[in-house]
Amino acid sequence: MSSSFGQVFRIHSFGESHGGGVGVVIDGCPPRIPLSLAAIQRELDRRRPGQSEIVTPRIEPDTAEILSGVHDGLTLGTPIAILVRNTNALPAAYDTMAEIYRPSHADYTYDAKYGIRAPSGGGRASARETIGRVAAAAVARQVLDFLHPGIEIIAWVKSIQDLNATVDPAAVTAAAIESNIVRTGDPALIEPMIERIKAVRAEGNSVGGVIECVIRHAPPGLGEPVFDKLEADLAKAMLSLPATKGFEIGSGFAGTLLTGRDHNDPFRMADGRVRTTCNRSGGVQGGISNGEDILFRVAFKPTATLMIPQLTVTSSGHNTELTGKGRHDACVLPRAVPIVEAMATLVLTDHLLRQRILAPKS
Amino acid sequence: MSSSFGQVFRIHSFGESHGGGVGVVIDGCPPRIPLSLAAIQRELDRRRPGQSEIVTPRIEPDTAEILSGVHDGLTLGTPIAILVRNTNALPAAYDTMAEIYRPSHADYTYDAKYGIRAPSGGGRASARETIGRVAAAAVARQVLDFLHPGIEIIAWVKSIQDLNATVDPAAVTAAAIESNIVRTGDPALIEPMIERIKAVRAEGNSVGGVIECVIRHAPPGLGEPVFDKLEADLAKAMLSLPATKGFEIGSGFAGTLLTGRDHNDPFRMADGRVRTTCNRSGGVQGGISNGEDILFRVAFKPTATLMIPQLTVTSSGHNTELTGKGRHDACVLPRAVPIVEAMATLVLTDHLLRQRILAPKS
Amino acid sequence: MSSSFGQVFRIHSFGESHGGGVGVVIDGCPPRIPLSLAAIQRELDRRRPGQSEIVTPRIEPDTAEILSGVHDGLTLGTPIAILVRNTNALPAAYDTMAEIYRPSHADYTYDAKYGIRAPSGGGRASARETIGRVAAAAVARQVLDFLHPGIEIIAWVKSIQDLNATVDPAAVTAAAIESNIVRTGDPALIEPMIERIKAVRAEGNSVGGVIECVIRHAPPGLGEPVFDKLEADLAKAMLSLPATKGFEIGSGFAGTLLTGRDHNDPFRMADGRVRTTCNRSGGVQGGISNGEDILFRVAFKPTATLMIPQLTVTSSGHNTELTGKGRHDACVLPRAVPIVEAMATLVLTDHLLRQRILAPKS
Amino acid sequence: MSSSFGQVFRIHSFGESHGGGVGVVIDGCPPRIPLSLAAIQRELDRRRPGQSEIVTPRIEPDTAEILSGVHDGLTLGTPIAILVRNTNALPAAYDTMAEIYRPSHADYTYDAKYGIRAPSGGGRASARETIGRVAAAAVARQVLDFLHPGIEIIAWVKSIQDLNATVDPAAVTAAAIESNIVRTGDPALIEPMIERIKAVRAEGNSVGGVIECVIRHAPPGLGEPVFDKLEADLAKAMLSLPATKGFEIGSGFAGTLLTGRDHNDPFRMADGRVRTTCNRSGGVQGGISNGEDILFRVAFKPTATLMIPQLTVTSSGHNTELTGKGRHDACVLPRAVPIVEAMATLVLTDHLLRQRILAPKS
Repeated sequence: MSSSFGQVFRIHSFGESHGGGVGVVIDGCPPRIPLSLAAIQRELDRRRPGQSEIVTPRIEPDTAEILSGVHDGLTLGTPIAILVRNTNALPAAYDTMAEIYRPSHADYTYDAKYGIRAPSGGGRASARETIGRVAAAAVARQVLDFLHPGIEIIAWVKSIQDLNATVDPAAVTAAAIESNIVRTGDPALIEPMIERIKAVRAEGNSVGGVIECVIRHAPPGLGEPVFDKLEADLAKAMLSLPATKGFEIGSGFAGTLLTGRDHNDPFRMADGRVRTTCNRSGGVQGGISNGEDILFRVAFKPTATLMIPQLTVTSSGHNTELTGKGRHDACVLPRAVPIVEAMATLVLTDHLLRQRILAPKS
Repeated sequence: MSSSFGQVFRIHSFGESHGGGVGVVIDGCPPRIPLSLAAIQRELDRRRPGQSEIVTPRIEPDTAEILSGVHDGLTLGTPIAILVRNTNALPAAYDTMAEIYRPSHADYTYDAKYGIRAPSGGGRASARETIGRVAAAAVARQVLDFLHPGIEIIAWVKSIQDLNATVDPAAVTAAAIESNIVRTGDPALIEPMIERIKAVRAEGNSVGGVIECVIRHAPPGLGEPVFDKLEADLAKAMLSLPATKGFEIGSGFAGTLLTGRDHNDPFRMADGRVRTTCNRSGGVQGGISNGEDILFRVAFKPTATLMIPQLTVTSSGHNTELTGKGRHDACVLPRAVPIVEAMATLVLTDHLLRQRILAPKS
Repeated sequence: MSSSFGQVFRIHSFGESHGGGVGVVIDGCPPRIPLSLAAIQRELDRRRPGQSEIVTPRIEPDTAEILSGVHDGLTLGTPIAILVRNTNALPAAYDTMAEIYRPSHADYTYDAKYGIRAPSGGGRASARETIGRVAAAAVARQVLDFLHPGIEIIAWVKSIQDLNATVDPAAVTAAAIESNIVRTGDPALIEPMIERIKAVRAEGNSVGGVIECVIRHAPPGLGEPVFDKLEADLAKAMLSLPATKGFEIGSGFAGTLLTGRDHNDPFRMADGRVRTTCNRSGGVQGGISNGEDILFRVAFKPTATLMIPQLTVTSSGHNTELTGKGRHDACVLPRAVPIVEAMATLVLTDHLLRQRILAPKS
Repeated sequence: MSSSFGQVFRIHSFGESHGGGVGVVIDGCPPRIPLSLAAIQRELDRRRPGQSEIVTPRIEPDTAEILSGVHDGLTLGTPIAILVRNTNALPAAYDTMAEIYRPSHADYTYDAKYGIRAPSGGGRASARETIGRVAAAAVARQVLDFLHPGIEIIAWVKSIQDLNATVDPAAVTAAAIESNIVRTGDPALIEPMIERIKAVRAEGNSVGGVIECVIRHAPPGLGEPVFDKLEADLAKAMLSLPATKGFEIGSGFAGTLLTGRDHNDPFRMADGRVRTTCNRSGGVQGGISNGEDILFRVAFKPTATLMIPQLTVTSSGHNTELTGKGRHDACVLPRAVPIVEAMATLVLTDHLLRQRILAPKS
């Protein structure tokens, strides 16, 4: 029961890096929403391997098929199943690793939990699993566009190691992010970040960083105290992604250095609306959106697969050494940008639909 | 449906700061577990106002009553309802605030969401709501002690503003934390932290900080990919707490500065077990515990209630100014320590019970 | 996790016949609904023991207290907790039965499941557990009255043993049912039913029967294929009640004797609406309400507690004989009428609120 | 969120009669269970059209593909997705019906609920939807065989109209049921039932009946009070099936004619176990299995599709007449037998796995 996410716009993910394919079933999509398969494919292409010179050169077309829930381009209100076939599994590339636990991967813990493990490519722990999330979110995005047009959800690479981008969350555009292969929002950092990734890859090493995401024009009132607070659901969404180690919203960890006087967001009326004059809250107060930009950051660790020797053990309990093989990302962040947006979109759509239940007398 | 938490050890929280009381219903507690009401009360006393000179002087006895699910000191397997009466509501102290939105509080967002709001003391957004969580976790703690003795869950104040404690998560004891009223694990920081809190309080100001928490001796195998990963459920648990702005596990945000070579945790055999020689993973890999210490940190913002004038608006849409009244914590962290432990205990207990479903053929 | 019911208007029930009390937490009640405690008490009084000469003479006032979720007579959108104290537990009356499994009661199966059992009064298996359901449904009823006025939910005793009432579901009134202590809808059967109950009680014996229930003026469109079909949720609701053995909707079991030609409900336009000219569907087609009266029946077995000797076994595994003691209903149906209405009200309210999620673009 | 069933062994169904296919995702299947695709296909073949001269002659191979969750014939503990392609949709056959509401079908109610409807073959309301259930249950069956060998779940046609089979639930074998195309357990009724079906079909008419099902050798202790009682979950499971109108367990509706003295099941010790000397409880007491045979019956209405003219309306609100076309079952019961077994298997497997959570200290 752990591969489901969301309460009302509820998704069920399936699939390993080997086997027939990966995908998702969406239960709870409202009916009569225009749905474009091309828009789904576009998002899958943004997370696809082989899309640029700084991501893994693996070629996987990741072509989506809608199996159910849609007729003549409109949602039916019934479950929408989307399937992406596995086409480039290459189990041979992983053969020698089947008996060796890759450091900081999930091989050992899957064995510890299930007593069994898909022997190649990470199985369910592969980043390939995120295909179902991105496909579902591409549906959610179209639900938002139809029911609540104008909401923007944009993520970018905030930092690669110590290279820290300067980005204005209120102004950054999706086009600006998408215009560069590292998907950062700071033109001055594009080349340094690309060079850094290439440099560590050349050493067989890897890097991590931080992705920042803004949700603009979300209405106030989203998020459900006390456990399904908006930031709580966002935190869970982000920490459920492979390779993530941290989440912060608004002022985050740095906000703990301030006193309350400098941290509080004063309210002022503006154009007849309640606004705050700054946004250390990150758009959420008491677990509920306040109409300001929702702004959060997610920490991604350096890729665990390295092309240099590492100490490790075998599944039968012997010390050994491992040098990675295969084709991997030396930095997952460029491909993780659409995935962070996807999870944010799923959370927001779910809470927008949940809010309908509370509507005043119609 | 937002006041429930957990999948198998599932809790349902209720109650506002005004009204008859606050409490919790636990559904899914296994039968025949010895249950001590005194142990529940002890945890409630740790979060209680008025317990020391650096927390709010409000006197609330917060006495727990078990309404159901227990007979002769043993759990029955049926829902355990626990009630704590409200005794010191003092609505008068909040009267003038009823029409004014307190900055960085949930007054405005509750109105935006529900179109109605409990007029005093924060209602459901009051920290008083956490009583149900702490009571439920005190039951969970006794479930752990009976079914999986030896698991330790200890939190402490890691920092107050820039005062940053040095604590060894592998060695720190609950007694050491509990021996000082600020609940830090670094003897050298006790007095400076206390002084800092007193100083900002004297100014009508407030401070925040970071709480760190370790779970020791948890077995490998806990956490359920892909959405209910252990760190994802911990992140949601922590970000569902009032005043939290961030969560990180293991190396966290700082880990993004390292390369993979320096970040990965090598595996080595030790005493016949698979171990890692360092723990930047924070005890979780691929969303599943690996048997090492589970270590995470939670950022708490400075208390929003200040005894100094702040700009704000009224609920009818006029700009105004507000100076806080009443009795409040200038720093929530000392009282938040048992609450962080409580949420960690709930997550761990739930996952330990969920793991039973996967047991090999019995 | 088995004491929760409903998806959106979700209730969590707690309590045994012994202990501090029984009650319910409602999570998902929309905000700003006027809520009358007196209306809740009125429904509890309808299910209360001691209300007439044909039910158990036990005196339990069953006074409800609202602990949370309501302010100044309006719902807050937060969990509504309702508590009814136990006042007349009299464990002594059950003492000799503690070690003997009462035939066709839940004593043995609770021991088989939990390895422990509340020793008196049936514990969680007591009919007292239904108090939480009735209280929650009395809240739901007020939600319906506010959001969808005009929906009627009326149940009555259709049969006691072979005494079979003739009732027109389209015309029967709540007042007519409530005017007689056996709660049947057929004036000619009131006295015979009362006499039958008194006669079997005089013998220490018991009787069962059938309760019929109609939901009038429910809009078309309620019920969610494929698993949460309206009749599926009604069936679960009814079979979750103590002493129930069967459920049928519309033509039910008798409908299996007809051919399709005689069973189908032809559609005709009437007053601009799609109507059926008969209603063997019982108001539900494909799991979704069609706007006609929703009509179903529930079978209740004869009360298991008898004042005559019965063969049974002890909990330590010896054959023995038992003669019931205490004060019991010789026929549960009169008191079960409001409970059947309660469960129907919960199902309908939940589905009405769920339907809001599917609303066209607002 | 209405296409999910089960709490721990949780299935998510998808698919319409048109579109890419139908299928299911199973989340919560324990790891390391040997899983045979052939066994899944065998069950799908039992529900398949075209299998005998008394069912619809439509030819649909209904070939299952396992997309995920299985490696080398063992379950991985990850979601198991199973897909059956649609191959014989023939939308043309339904064209003239697209604008006409078929009486006692779900056409009108789907429009009323969703404002849109798959235009051919019933869409999601097609019996084809049950493929996902049967496939999931065939997995569950293998879980039972591995974890709890010896549990038998056998259903049969108890009646077709007034033709009422005499079957001994304690002795009937799966082979006996499967040996005749009508799937009854009474040799004397095989030919009469077949003749009845052929006769009504020849008239363009249809018939319904009752399916009875026994679960033998289930352990005591299954079922979770108060809402997830075993009979409540069975009732929901059965009433969620297309064309069902009633459910009863044990003595059912007929039991309401008895007095308590004749209805109660006396306990007696036998071979060191607690047994009942009769079984009017139907194997469940207080919502929990008692170790006796679990016996229940399900009423199926006559097939709604008729080859004779019927009064109805168009979707644009005009009275009209409709004569069915296409290839349909004149009696669904022979094909519904494996579907009833499937739903019973899902309920039982879910509760067996849930019971693991309550295990005493290990």
